[in-house]
Amino acid sequence: MFNSISNKKVYEEVIEQIQKNIIDGDLKKGDRLPSERELSELMNISRTSIREALRVLESMGVVESIHGEGNFICSNTGNSLLQPLSMMFKLNNGKYKDIFELRKVLEVENARLAAIRATDMDCRELLSIVEEMEEESKGKNRNEILVELDKRFHNKVATMSKNCLIESLFNTASMLFERFIEDARWEIIKRDTADKFLLNQHYAICNEIIKKDEKEALKAMEAHMKYIEENFDK
Amino acid sequence: MFNSISNKKVYEEVIEQIQKNIIDGDLKKGDRLPSERELSELMNISRTSIREALRVLESMGVVESIHGEGNFICSNTGNSLLQPLSMMFKLNNGKYKDIFELRKVLEVENARLAAIRATDMDCRELLSIVEEMEEESKGKNRNEILVELDKRFHNKVATMSKNCLIESLFNTASMLFERFIEDARWEIIKRDTADKFLLNQHYAICNEIIKKDEKEALKAMEAHMKYIEENFDK
Repeated sequence: MFNSISNKKVYEEVIEQIQKNIIDGDLKKGDRLPSERELSELMNISRTSIREALRVLESMGVVESIHGEGNFICSNTGNSLLQPLSMMFKLNNGKYKDIFELRKVLEVENARLAAIRATDMDCRELLSIVEEMEEESKGKNRNEILVELDKRFHNKVATMSKNCLIESLFNTASMLFERFIEDARWEIIKRDTADKFLLNQHYAICNEIIKKDEKEALKAMEAHMKYIEENFDK
Repeated sequence: MFNSISNKKVYEEVIEQIQKNIIDGDLKKGDRLPSERELSELMNISRTSIREALRVLESMGVVESIHGEGNFICSNTGNSLLQPLSMMFKLNNGKYKDIFELRKVLEVENARLAAIRATDMDCRELLSIVEEMEEESKGKNRNEILVELDKRFHNKVATMSKNCLIESLFNTASMLFERFIEDARWEIIKRDTADKFLLNQHYAICNEIIKKDEKEALKAMEAHMKYIEENFDK
């Protein structure tokens, strides 16, 4: 006799409206949203609901609130994906292997796409990171710097894939990796014997990308991932 | 002379506390959180901040609010990843190819992992989906049912990977695919000539998984993705 009334919450409807505007292209990066007061008048709802919606959008990395300036559309999704994925991982009793497998599949694809899409400038930047690795591996206190260069190398390859989704998920996977397997890079890099081997692997990946050989770039990254997997025992 | 005061917002600190409890394993799926009033007393902050934090956790798929019952820990991350990724995709002027590439790399890895990890029960279920496809492809009005069976097949392979992160991201990629390339499956399946070919591709993937041959399962899925890519022109 009676129909159920939509139990969608008011703040969810606010999020949906803003989301629709973004998907439709009416709201773009850098756009300033109307003030909380204006939004509450425009939508005829309480400022509490507006504020709840803005908080959620902030946590998604889609809205940035700048004190005294207002709320702006941005796209800092990196962190916003990390939080739900980290919690989901724990709540489902995820294994460390899961994170490694995810990272591996994204890295291998990044190397392949980078070989297809890298610009000359990209290639020069990647090569200079590997050259710096070579230089640093001769010095003292090299471990910390090498860990940093290693991160920069892999992030650069991800950017070179020119696929915003894969890059963004790779960044999330890297952060998960660091959050849950924080000592992995350190563990491997601190072994003196590994130095030369790792350096050569980075050179190999870099060279195949420069040669624009997608198959060999993929293989070189696969070999690198295999080495890490076999030499890091969680 | 003065130190800057942390500009972290109160609701963010609430989220961090709950998140820490989850990561540390003190809060588990199904656990009921203290009431908003209790939380606000425990943390000595306003109920508004508590409510803002709970909304964010709800949008992340980590907290479920059941009317009259309270707030419970859950792990429905599927949707929670879709929203930020969809918006990021639009805000970065993502291309349809990006979504396809993401889906492809996850699907291929799923097939490989499924071949390693599938149980006999999994294999029987997967085979029965393909057999149903074969049966349905003879009938009338087959398109809608085939689209549904196709989804079930790929979801089943994702579950068989037994990697909660890859499965969850595959689900998100599928939803992105459906949101932005909604007619892809339909476009391909409605071509009569494709029927037999697609059916054979699904049989091939299924058979290699049953044989536990990870290399051939991966190749069979790659061939399937290649066919879709070449035959769907957005």
